Amino acid sequence: MHPTDLSKSIQTTGSFLCIGLDTDPLRIPGHLCDLPDPVYEFNRQIIEATSDLAVAYKPNLAFYEAQGPAGWESLEKTLEVIPEGIMTIADAKRGDIGNTSRLYARTFFETYGFDAVTVAPYMGYDSVAPFLEYENKWVFLLALTSNPGAKDFQWHMEEGMPLYEKVVRKGEEWAQKLPGHLGYVTGATRPEYIGEVRTLAPEAFFLVPGVGAQGGNLKLVAEQGMNTHTGLLVNSSRGIIYASPGEDFAEAARAKALELVGQMKSLI
Amino acid sequence: MHPTDLSKSIQTTGSFLCIGLDTDPLRIPGHLCDLPDPVYEFNRQIIEATSDLAVAYKPNLAFYEAQGPAGWESLEKTLEVIPEGIMTIADAKRGDIGNTSRLYARTFFETYGFDAVTVAPYMGYDSVAPFLEYENKWVFLLALTSNPGAKDFQWHMEEGMPLYEKVVRKGEEWAQKLPGHLGYVTGATRPEYIGEVRTLAPEAFFLVPGVGAQGGNLKLVAEQGMNTHTGLLVNSSRGIIYASPGEDFAEAARAKALELVGQMKSLI
Repeated sequence: MHPTDLSKSIQTTGSFLCIGLDTDPLRIPGHLCDLPDPVYEFNRQIIEATSDLAVAYKPNLAFYEAQGPAGWESLEKTLEVIPEGIMTIADAKRGDIGNTSRLYARTFFETYGFDAVTVAPYMGYDSVAPFLEYENKWVFLLALTSNPGAKDFQWHMEEGMPLYEKVVRKGEEWAQKLPGHLGYVTGATRPEYIGEVRTLAPEAFFLVPGVGAQGGNLKLVAEQGMNTHTGLLVNSSRGIIYASPGEDFAEAARAKALELVGQMKSLI
Repeated sequence: MHPTDLSKSIQTTGSFLCIGLDTDPLRIPGHLCDLPDPVYEFNRQIIEATSDLAVAYKPNLAFYEAQGPAGWESLEKTLEVIPEGIMTIADAKRGDIGNTSRLYARTFFETYGFDAVTVAPYMGYDSVAPFLEYENKWVFLLALTSNPGAKDFQWHMEEGMPLYEKVVRKGEEWAQKLPGHLGYVTGATRPEYIGEVRTLAPEAFFLVPGVGAQGGNLKLVAEQGMNTHTGLLVNSSRGIIYASPGEDFAEAARAKALELVGQMKSLI
């Protein structure tokens, strides 16, 4: 997916919502549990109820991996029902030596056909480059994450420059050299710093988790992070997909998504 | 597995060899390729030929993930044929917000029954703690990796302290609080710094990749990294499992493993 297509899709829908498919079998409504693949069935109904509102879906791979081989089948089937033109992001947080990252890239981009993958920066250039060698595929590099532990290392400070800033500066260099598209994960729980990342990467898309269950504020995120082509994908997972534990889960998810998109429309 | 059991196993075998099962279907000898599960069959024969020489096996998850659902089945079957008492390490380099890391921990420790998992530190405490909450399970935290990109962020320097050092210092704190066992990944391509990590973590086990295909030197690693109970697991993957491309691959792998263990015996 080309960035201009993503921007167009944001303009058309008035939404920069990414829905996180963190599908936990223990939280799937009971009436689905006797079906052959409850995870897929849950996802399918969520997608059907929200696909006019979301510009991206982000399966969190931990949830699929936890189900053993069957989980990967649920994931494959889920990807098939996401309509063309909606971005698919593998929330995988991979990153390894070159030859291993190359294999992860092949898996997510070729085998599963994802548009994007989240990548952890700790191992540096050769752990990220194999993902960026794909034209029209995306990396969302962890910069400033939304969890409490973000403070442990992301603020390690070299002559006034925190580690997360170095990650973004290096990332911008790498993106110049390689054909793929590079965005950054910047947590909604620290909106004041999203503006700093925006200064460093004026054109990049940010994938912003932490609105909803983790407490981030959409308005602040937009104020700090938006650029002329929006440049944001704000993710909500649990707040949408578990909006109701009952048979009306898909309807309730739609209602929650509508609420967020309503706010987004007023912010674009 | 308790650290004293690992140390005993090292003393008994005279080996601190970890064999990396980076099993690439494209490099499996032709005569195995018509079998129903060539990856498993390859691993089984490697394990059978080397299990008296290795104290740990380390499947690199990228290689299994790349095969889709079938890859995870090959992995499960492989784990079943690793003899009791040999450590199993999931080379997964996971790390995510708390609730997601918890799920990864459950997957690797409970569903697959691994003894250990490699974890990326970028997201900090709550991304690592869920793995360390398991008694008698292990985390190998990425500290100083063996790849060229290690220099990009691991040397980000705060008042003379490189990031990798802060990772080890924090890791040592966390290990005090939580029941799991914490070791560090310290690449053999930078043996001069393994000694620095040893000073920071005198008791910890180090998982040392990069001997062999990546060019690291075993003698230097031992000089820098060994402690009174050895405290090292030196990994070799490609150098052992692809020692021969022919029908004699398992025999050739054994010969390579014997060569390394011969050197190890003289170093312990």
